[in-house]
Amino acid sequence: MKNCIENTKKTDKSFFQLIRKSDEGNFNLRVGKIINSKGYELPTPSFIPVATNASIRALDSKKIIELGIKGIFVNTYHMHLAPGEDYVEEAGGLHKFMNYQGVIFTDSGGFQAFSLGQAIVDGVGKIVSIFSKEGKRRNKNEEKFAEIKEDKIIFKSHLDGKIIELTPEKSIMIQQKLGSDILMVLDECTSPLSSYEYTKKAMERSKKWAKICLEYFKQTTKGDQFLYGIIQGGYHYDLRKDSAEFICSLDFDGIAIGGSLGTSKENIKEILSWVLPYIPENKPRHLLGIGSIQEIFTAVENGMDTFDCVIPTRYARTGTVFVKTPPSFVKDITAKYYNGYETKRYHKPVDENCNCYTCQNYTVSYLHHLFYVGEISAMTLLTIHNLNFYNNLLADIRKSIIEGRYLEFKKNFFQI
Amino acid sequence: MKNCIENTKKTDKSFFQLIRKSDEGNFNLRVGKIINSKGYELPTPSFIPVATNASIRALDSKKIIELGIKGIFVNTYHMHLAPGEDYVEEAGGLHKFMNYQGVIFTDSGGFQAFSLGQAIVDGVGKIVSIFSKEGKRRNKNEEKFAEIKEDKIIFKSHLDGKIIELTPEKSIMIQQKLGSDILMVLDECTSPLSSYEYTKKAMERSKKWAKICLEYFKQTTKGDQFLYGIIQGGYHYDLRKDSAEFICSLDFDGIAIGGSLGTSKENIKEILSWVLPYIPENKPRHLLGIGSIQEIFTAVENGMDTFDCVIPTRYARTGTVFVKTPPSFVKDITAKYYNGYETKRYHKPVDENCNCYTCQNYTVSYLHHLFYVGEISAMTLLTIHNLNFYNNLLADIRKSIIEGRYLEFKKNFFQI
Repeated sequence: MKNCIENTKKTDKSFFQLIRKSDEGNFNLRVGKIINSKGYELPTPSFIPVATNASIRALDSKKIIELGIKGIFVNTYHMHLAPGEDYVEEAGGLHKFMNYQGVIFTDSGGFQAFSLGQAIVDGVGKIVSIFSKEGKRRNKNEEKFAEIKEDKIIFKSHLDGKIIELTPEKSIMIQQKLGSDILMVLDECTSPLSSYEYTKKAMERSKKWAKICLEYFKQTTKGDQFLYGIIQGGYHYDLRKDSAEFICSLDFDGIAIGGSLGTSKENIKEILSWVLPYIPENKPRHLLGIGSIQEIFTAVENGMDTFDCVIPTRYARTGTVFVKTPPSFVKDITAKYYNGYETKRYHKPVDENCNCYTCQNYTVSYLHHLFYVGEISAMTLLTIHNLNFYNNLLADIRKSIIEGRYLEFKKNFFQI
Repeated sequence: MKNCIENTKKTDKSFFQLIRKSDEGNFNLRVGKIINSKGYELPTPSFIPVATNASIRALDSKKIIELGIKGIFVNTYHMHLAPGEDYVEEAGGLHKFMNYQGVIFTDSGGFQAFSLGQAIVDGVGKIVSIFSKEGKRRNKNEEKFAEIKEDKIIFKSHLDGKIIELTPEKSIMIQQKLGSDILMVLDECTSPLSSYEYTKKAMERSKKWAKICLEYFKQTTKGDQFLYGIIQGGYHYDLRKDSAEFICSLDFDGIAIGGSLGTSKENIKEILSWVLPYIPENKPRHLLGIGSIQEIFTAVENGMDTFDCVIPTRYARTGTVFVKTPPSFVKDITAKYYNGYETKRYHKPVDENCNCYTCQNYTVSYLHHLFYVGEISAMTLLTIHNLNFYNNLLADIRKSIIEGRYLEFKKNFFQI
C-alpha cells in the first residue's frame, strides 16, 4: 500500500518501535510497540487501564494478564501514601509487588494536584468523591487537599491529613523506587475554568519542573526506566505550541499530552494537531486521561500511541457495559429494560458475540441480580467485560491500520 | 481395618451413598457422597459455603467450580425477595441462573425468621447488620423484620418493607421453583435466650410444619429434588429427643439439625449425641450454621455429612485468613504484624505451603495494602484462600477416615 510506510527505526534505547505509519483518510495513524527493560511488550496504539493503588479495581493481577492487558497506569501520589515507595521498592518494585508482567506507567502526582486541588474548588474534571475517615462525602467548593507553589506541590493526605511536599525531584525519586517502566515528569494540570494568564503561568512552571525532572532522572537512572515529558497549555494554541516546542526539544524517551483538553473531541483533535508537528516520530506519545470510545478514535487518528482512563473500569462498577451499538456504545445493566426486554427476564449474555469470560459464563438477568443485591462479584464481572471490549477494540484498530482498512473498520464500527 | 465397614447401601433414590463408616476413637465417622439428579457429586463430609444471593460473596460461579467446591448453600428468603423464584425458574433454575455445576442446598426461610426477628430483639446469633434504603445500620433492640404465627412467618422485607407471608407450603413451592437439589422444611429457629417453654412450643410448631412440608413436597415433586427434615429443640435433651424421634419417623431424604446448638463445641457434641440414635444410617445429615474449625471436627466426629456456615467467607472479607496454626487457626492480614514481622514488609504468601491461587500469586504485604486502600479484589483473594483452606481440610479428613488414620491426622492438625 502506498500510504503505508514500513518503519522499524528505534529510539536510542530501543524502547519504542514504530512498525507502520499510515495516512489513510489523511489521518496520522501509527502502529508500534513499547518494550520495557524486562522485555514485556506493549503493542500500540493501546488503551492503558488505570490501576490507582497498584490494582485495577475489582480485578487481581493474574486476571489482568489473562485479559491480555499489556500496560497499566498506576498513580504515584496514591502509592506514596500507601504503602509508600520504600515498601514497594523493598518488595522488588511494582511488577513484583502486584505480580504483573507488563508495562507499568506511573504518573507524577501532578494530576492529583488538580483533582484534589482546583478541581474541588471548581467542581470540574473527574468525579471528586473523597471520603474522610468518618465516611463523609466531600463535594465541590469544599476543602482543597492540594496547593501549588512555585517549586512544589503541597498535599494534605486524604487518608490521614498528613502534609506531603512533592518537588520535581521527589516525584522522580518516588517513581524510581516504585520501579515503573514509564515515568512522567511533575507537571501542573490546570482546570478548564482557569484563565489564560493562569494557564500560561502554570505551563511555564511545568516547563521548569520538566527540566528539573529530566536532569534529576539522567543523573540517577539505572537505564531501566523511561521518562516522558508532558505538554501542557490548556485549550490555547500559543501555550500548547510553546510547551510542545520546549518539551520536545529535551531528551525525553516519550511525550505525553496532559491538562485540559477542552470540552469535546473536536477540541482534542485541535490540540493534538497543534502539538503533533513538534513531537519526533520515533518517540512514543501518551494522551493523559482519555477516554471515551469517540476520544479513542480521535487519539488514534492523531498519532497517539497510548492513553489511560478510568472510564471502562469506573463504568463497570456502576453497572454500565460497553456494547457494539452506536452512538453511545453503552447499556445500563441496572436499568429495568435491556435490549427492549425486562432485564430480569433477559437470560442471555451482555453481548452474544462477545468472547469475554463474563459473556461466556453469565446472563444479563444474573448480573442485574448481583448488582441489585450488592454483590461485589458483579463489579468484577463487568470490569472484565468492559476491559475486554476496549482491548478488542484497540486490537481491531491496530489490525485495520496494518491492513490499510482503518476507514472501513471505523465505518463499520460506527455503522455509518 | 476392623473398625471400618464398607457400606455402599443407597437410599431409595440413590441420592446418598455411604462409602465407609469408622468408629476410630469411638467416634461416629463416615465418608459418603451425595449425588443430585443432574449427576453432580458431593463427597461427604463436606463444608458447604453460603451463597446467600445465589453467589458466594466476592466470587463468581466459575471460581467456585475451580476451587473444587461441590456444594453451596443458597438462602430461600433472599432469593424470594430478589430476583424472585419465578425469574429463577424462568432462567432454568439456580444451577443455570448462576452457572454452577454442583449440589445446591436451599434453606426454608426459617432461619431468617430468627435472624430478622428474635435475634434482633435479643441481640444474639449472627451479626445483624441490615442496611435500610437510607444506609442506616440497624442494631439490636431495633425493629423486628419477622414475626412467627402458628401457621406461618410474616416478614417485612429488609429491602423495600413489603410484607411477605411464608407458609410451609409456600417455602417448599419457592424452593421447587428455585430448582435447588436439597430443600429444607420450614422450621422455627429459636434464640439461645428463649425459655424452655418457648423452645418447646416452637419445636412442636416446627414438627407440624415439617409434616405439612413433606406432604406438599410428595404431592408436587418431579423426583429431581430431595427434602430434609429439621430437628429442633434447642439445648434441651427431651425436646431434641422428641423432635428427632418425630422427624426421623417421616420419609425425608435427609435430616438436618438446626436451631440453637448451645454455646460451645461441648454443647454441640452433646446435642448431636442426643439425636444421632434416631437418624437412619442411610440418610445424609446436615448440621445447620456450623462452623469454626473446632466445630467441624466435632460435626465430623458425630456423624454429620455436611454443614454450612459463613465463617470462611465472612472472615475473608474483613481480612482474617485461615492458617495451619493452632489454636486459633487464623491471622489478621490488616494487623500491623504478621508472623512477627511488620505486615507491610512480609513479602511472602499468607502460607508458604498453601496451594491456593492467592498464595501462589500474591504476598501478605500486597494483600495488606489492598485491604488498607479498600480494594475489593482483596476480599476476593482472601475468600479464595479461606475456602481453599476449608476444602483441603475436609478432603484431608475424608482421606484420613478412609485410610483409618483420622486420630493421627487430627493430632497432627492440632499439633497436640
